[in-house]
Amino acid sequence: MNPFTEKALAMLEKRGVTLSDIVDCVYYLQKPYHQNLQHKDLEESVLKVLDKREVWHALMTAIELDVLAEQDRFSNKELEKIVQMDEGLYGMDEVLAYGICNLYGSIAMTNFGFIDKTKFGIVGKLNEEGKKQGICHTFLDDMVGAIAAAAASRFAHR
Amino acid sequence: MNPFTEKALAMLEKRGVTLSDIVDCVYYLQKPYHQNLQHKDLEESVLKVLDKREVWHALMTAIELDVLAEQDRFSNKELEKIVQMDEGLYGMDEVLAYGICNLYGSIAMTNFGFIDKTKFGIVGKLNEEGKKQGICHTFLDDMVGAIAAAAASRFAHR
Amino acid sequence: MNPFTEKALAMLEKRGVTLSDIVDCVYYLQKPYHQNLQHKDLEESVLKVLDKREVWHALMTAIELDVLAEQDRFSNKELEKIVQMDEGLYGMDEVLAYGICNLYGSIAMTNFGFIDKTKFGIVGKLNEEGKKQGICHTFLDDMVGAIAAAAASRFAHR
Amino acid sequence: MNPFTEKALAMLEKRGVTLSDIVDCVYYLQKPYHQNLQHKDLEESVLKVLDKREVWHALMTAIELDVLAEQDRFSNKELEKIVQMDEGLYGMDEVLAYGICNLYGSIAMTNFGFIDKTKFGIVGKLNEEGKKQGICHTFLDDMVGAIAAAAASRFAHR
Repeated sequence: MNPFTEKALAMLEKRGVTLSDIVDCVYYLQKPYHQNLQHKDLEESVLKVLDKREVWHALMTAIELDVLAEQDRFSNKELEKIVQMDEGLYGMDEVLAYGICNLYGSIAMTNFGFIDKTKFGIVGKLNEEGKKQGICHTFLDDMVGAIAAAAASRFAHR
Repeated sequence: MNPFTEKALAMLEKRGVTLSDIVDCVYYLQKPYHQNLQHKDLEESVLKVLDKREVWHALMTAIELDVLAEQDRFSNKELEKIVQMDEGLYGMDEVLAYGICNLYGSIAMTNFGFIDKTKFGIVGKLNEEGKKQGICHTFLDDMVGAIAAAAASRFAHR
Repeated sequence: MNPFTEKALAMLEKRGVTLSDIVDCVYYLQKPYHQNLQHKDLEESVLKVLDKREVWHALMTAIELDVLAEQDRFSNKELEKIVQMDEGLYGMDEVLAYGICNLYGSIAMTNFGFIDKTKFGIVGKLNEEGKKQGICHTFLDDMVGAIAAAAASRFAHR
Repeated sequence: MNPFTEKALAMLEKRGVTLSDIVDCVYYLQKPYHQNLQHKDLEESVLKVLDKREVWHALMTAIELDVLAEQDRFSNKELEKIVQMDEGLYGMDEVLAYGICNLYGSIAMTNFGFIDKTKFGIVGKLNEEGKKQGICHTFLDDMVGAIAAAAASRFAHR
């Protein structure tokens, strides 16, 4: 396994996200277009997305911001509150997500918009958990949605 | 009314899309976030989006490509067939749509992805009609989705 | 003056960037296209760009990451080192910058790419200062370039 | 050679652009960052960029629009004139170019902005030729810049 992929999976797992959770999201996005789609067919696409340096950089940055929010460690308290509350008009989480989706083209972008709204599976679970005291997933839910959307686009193009 | 807006509305109407059709899409996108939302509140946002030169340029370019496909007037017949069939892996329609959504930020992008997948209202209608012989809406459905998504984002920020 | 604009100017000044520094960058970008261009004509465009909520959000997020790097306060030390060193393949600073440029269309994007490479004026100064011990401008130079590029595009469209 | 690459090279050559022209642009973009850089090292990156379906789709669409403009075959004469004149505020050529650059991340985007402004080599030559009667390169110069910028980014990440 590529070093970026390995580190990314470990970091995601530490934040409560498994490879299988993400594969479920890809399955949800690709199911309408393929008969007899198997989860194992999609796993490779997720691993390949996690293999990219830019994805690793986005993921580290996103999770850092969530962790800082959880620990009240922002120096800018106005920003800290916005991130902690996952304020609806704050869009930097989506902006970082587009940094991932863009790498996989227009299909990835529409898939991201869709799963970001429908909050399927782990995306919704992270979003809900993030509302609890001391937990912040403002950035992570978008990262997971973006990784799944990118993997779905990659699969569709093959 | 601004000259771009006026020309855009006329061009859309000629292709079977009314202002009211687009407002319905904005309503669909914004309803979950606002109680007592009125269609008339959203109309101004659509008119303001159509007021932008870049939106006008995108719309003209998109509709031209649809019209050329309807009339078999592409010089490149491989491309003509792709546009006529609305081939799933062809993404230039979404790329032009992002040229509109980007102007209204991250909320516009996710809204576009959502309506592009759910094919609500006129977006779905255009998509269906485009499958008929002699009709091509490969680009137009994405334009309408993008204009609605942009107007929804503009409204949300106010 | 709009509340976002006022807060943004104060935050930029605290990090060593004046309104006049940014106007100089806009002038550099627009000079080739306008005779008799005056700095005061461009100032309004910069103020209007700073007036947007998304720009304010991007700016706060970007500067927070720089400040955390200066104070060795990242929880993720691999990321901290990358941000402190302004590692060439780390692109999240540009990704946040695109979140600003995109709002002003394609001209803003090309202007950003140009000033990001030529490092005119305050952009280059920030970049140089950022190499000193205890100073980090990894994100700020891109923010300033993006604000200038956005203002140049806004001016060009009027 | 991949089928997309082969078709793309043939189409580019028909419009006056050789592989070597594009490699020269990549060299121009990457030279400052690598000692002993060889043109042959960069050729593979260009071929790989041309290998992508989305790049092929963008290229076909862009060249079609140029060709239609050369032959006065737009049904929308307002748009035809804009494309023929390469009107400065028309940005759909850049929007299609971003559809290529985005696939190669933030470095590709800044490289594109830079070469689009400096008009190095074939980019400038196409731009100049496009001003002659009966020749239109409004879209092609941006495509070539985008392919070179994408190849430069791909090379930088390896």
